[in-house]
Amino acid sequence: MNAPRAAGLPRHAAELLEAVRTRTPRVHCLMNTVVQKLVADALTATGAVPSMTSSPEEVQAFVRKADALVVNLGTLDARRREAIELALRTAAETGKPWVLDPAHCDYSPPRAAFAQDLLARGATVLRANAAEYALLDVPGELVAVRTGGQDRVAHAGTVLTIGNGDPLMAKVTGTGCLSGAVIAAFVAVGSDPFSATAAAMLALGVAAEIAAGNARGPGSFEPALLDALHALSARDIIEHARVRDEQG
Amino acid sequence: MNAPRAAGLPRHAAELLEAVRTRTPRVHCLMNTVVQKLVADALTATGAVPSMTSSPEEVQAFVRKADALVVNLGTLDARRREAIELALRTAAETGKPWVLDPAHCDYSPPRAAFAQDLLARGATVLRANAAEYALLDVPGELVAVRTGGQDRVAHAGTVLTIGNGDPLMAKVTGTGCLSGAVIAAFVAVGSDPFSATAAAMLALGVAAEIAAGNARGPGSFEPALLDALHALSARDIIEHARVRDEQG
Amino acid sequence: MNAPRAAGLPRHAAELLEAVRTRTPRVHCLMNTVVQKLVADALTATGAVPSMTSSPEEVQAFVRKADALVVNLGTLDARRREAIELALRTAAETGKPWVLDPAHCDYSPPRAAFAQDLLARGATVLRANAAEYALLDVPGELVAVRTGGQDRVAHAGTVLTIGNGDPLMAKVTGTGCLSGAVIAAFVAVGSDPFSATAAAMLALGVAAEIAAGNARGPGSFEPALLDALHALSARDIIEHARVRDEQG
Repeated sequence: MNAPRAAGLPRHAAELLEAVRTRTPRVHCLMNTVVQKLVADALTATGAVPSMTSSPEEVQAFVRKADALVVNLGTLDARRREAIELALRTAAETGKPWVLDPAHCDYSPPRAAFAQDLLARGATVLRANAAEYALLDVPGELVAVRTGGQDRVAHAGTVLTIGNGDPLMAKVTGTGCLSGAVIAAFVAVGSDPFSATAAAMLALGVAAEIAAGNARGPGSFEPALLDALHALSARDIIEHARVRDEQG
Repeated sequence: MNAPRAAGLPRHAAELLEAVRTRTPRVHCLMNTVVQKLVADALTATGAVPSMTSSPEEVQAFVRKADALVVNLGTLDARRREAIELALRTAAETGKPWVLDPAHCDYSPPRAAFAQDLLARGATVLRANAAEYALLDVPGELVAVRTGGQDRVAHAGTVLTIGNGDPLMAKVTGTGCLSGAVIAAFVAVGSDPFSATAAAMLALGVAAEIAAGNARGPGSFEPALLDALHALSARDIIEHARVRDEQG
Repeated sequence: MNAPRAAGLPRHAAELLEAVRTRTPRVHCLMNTVVQKLVADALTATGAVPSMTSSPEEVQAFVRKADALVVNLGTLDARRREAIELALRTAAETGKPWVLDPAHCDYSPPRAAFAQDLLARGATVLRANAAEYALLDVPGELVAVRTGGQDRVAHAGTVLTIGNGDPLMAKVTGTGCLSGAVIAAFVAVGSDPFSATAAAMLALGVAAEIAAGNARGPGSFEPALLDALHALSARDIIEHARVRDEQG
């Protein structure tokens, strides 16, 4: 694989951000109801085009129009499971990349079991926090992101660690969900899911740092994060990046 | 019809805004789950009283208490269709005006077909963006709003074009949906749906311009828009208005 | 009962706020879809940990993990009723305190009847606005909060009146719902539900006053409220408190 290592990631992230803005990929989100609005706004601020229906009657038409899919397990119920099943079938038929976010699977054993089943369905990327990640048996062929104080992006023995971000991210509901969607937007325009995922996490982490400088607390951090994503420049990414190669 | 032409619209809009604030019409919203909160806040900021349930068990009681209804087709599913059916029956029985917003009907053929069916059910106003609008066969007796860089409000051969607004509107999920709800509030207090609709679009466009002056990007634009709607004065509307008569 | 009277409440509120931040109670919210995000963010800003699923399949696992529960009747439908039934069964079995918020029960007779039934199920606290409150027959053993220009907290003949708050609270959808959730967080860490409830209302009222000083209108008030909850100090509470004892 020719994925950029740490040294090449900032420039790659700047290029992919520009590609998102130019090509405006559509990202369909099977997203928990709590954070649909924030995730839609973050995708738009980044340059992508969100859609959100989780109606089984309609989800396949939306996935066919999309360039990538994010499947978030928050506020999961029977109809949402049915919508996920239909969406993944369409994604497989049409070769669309998709990101799994097993939100809160550490709270509910059936949700964890469902997440594990989905991993075997050919997810392109898994994004999880440490508690969720620890419960899952992650296939090596997947790009796996463990978010936290440091974000760790791994694939087939290659690991990048991204030190950007801000503690206020954890004080706003939905920033994790939002990162899954931004990853989907970058993967939609990138040629390699591993480096596109790392690029998305880097861009988001830099935006979070800029936003924190304009915020008085978690309330004002949220609009500041959207402003920062919208205004983010190649230079911002390159100047702020803190990326390391790690042993896998 | 004695609808104000372009020259009279700003003063009419200022009067109707004042009427919304004085009479606080209740607007029931069958609104996609993504933007319920923003739409509720925008109605409140304007002076109206929102309600949002889309439960078939309860929607009729809420419509009976309401002064106007907005039917938005985002995140449409079987239960929401059932709720819409029940709501429209109550609206017809009680003579309540209603606004149709065929959100994202360009993504899903069954949604477009459903939107077309609803137009035949006596909608007072249709609000759609250009892509949605192009798919629908719009009856001439309807007030039809096509939103975009310029907002076009048409009825029975009379057409007004409103040049107010700001490109940041398109960067915030739900500003289109919000305009459908604000139209419903104005129609609830106005005597003529055409001029009330045009007045609502003008008030919202002026608020958007004021908000853009207080925003750093799409994130801070959203609270600034609510602040601007809440503080909007007759003078703001009259000074900022850019309205033109057009051939229908 | 040794509940603090008015004079002791500010210090008690400061102590419980500190306890919320230290012990980070989990609050499960059966919350209407409109305001889930704001309520989650407000709990996090206060120091608690929110969860939000209302799926019947999962709600019991989430309630078992929680320290308190809030049951809000907004956007009520058949599945949500089923989830409430299951959640209350688990809350009863595991002795978890819970807060009832009969949101908008004045709009819908079946919702009011359901709220009355739930009051007989051993709610710890009822939080309602004046219109909702007037419809319900409130058992004396309950802690009963009637929110409004003045917040009134009553239990077994003891009544405290809290004069803090700001009119902008009523201009933001979900601030009432949010107060039910913050009460649940305080009750989770307090030894006495009456004083914990009054403490929560005081903390929130003071935060609202601080937020109003940083806001231009209802739009900017919302993030400012979250910032204020996050930064709220013992000194803020003690200096701003306006609490009175009343005859019950």
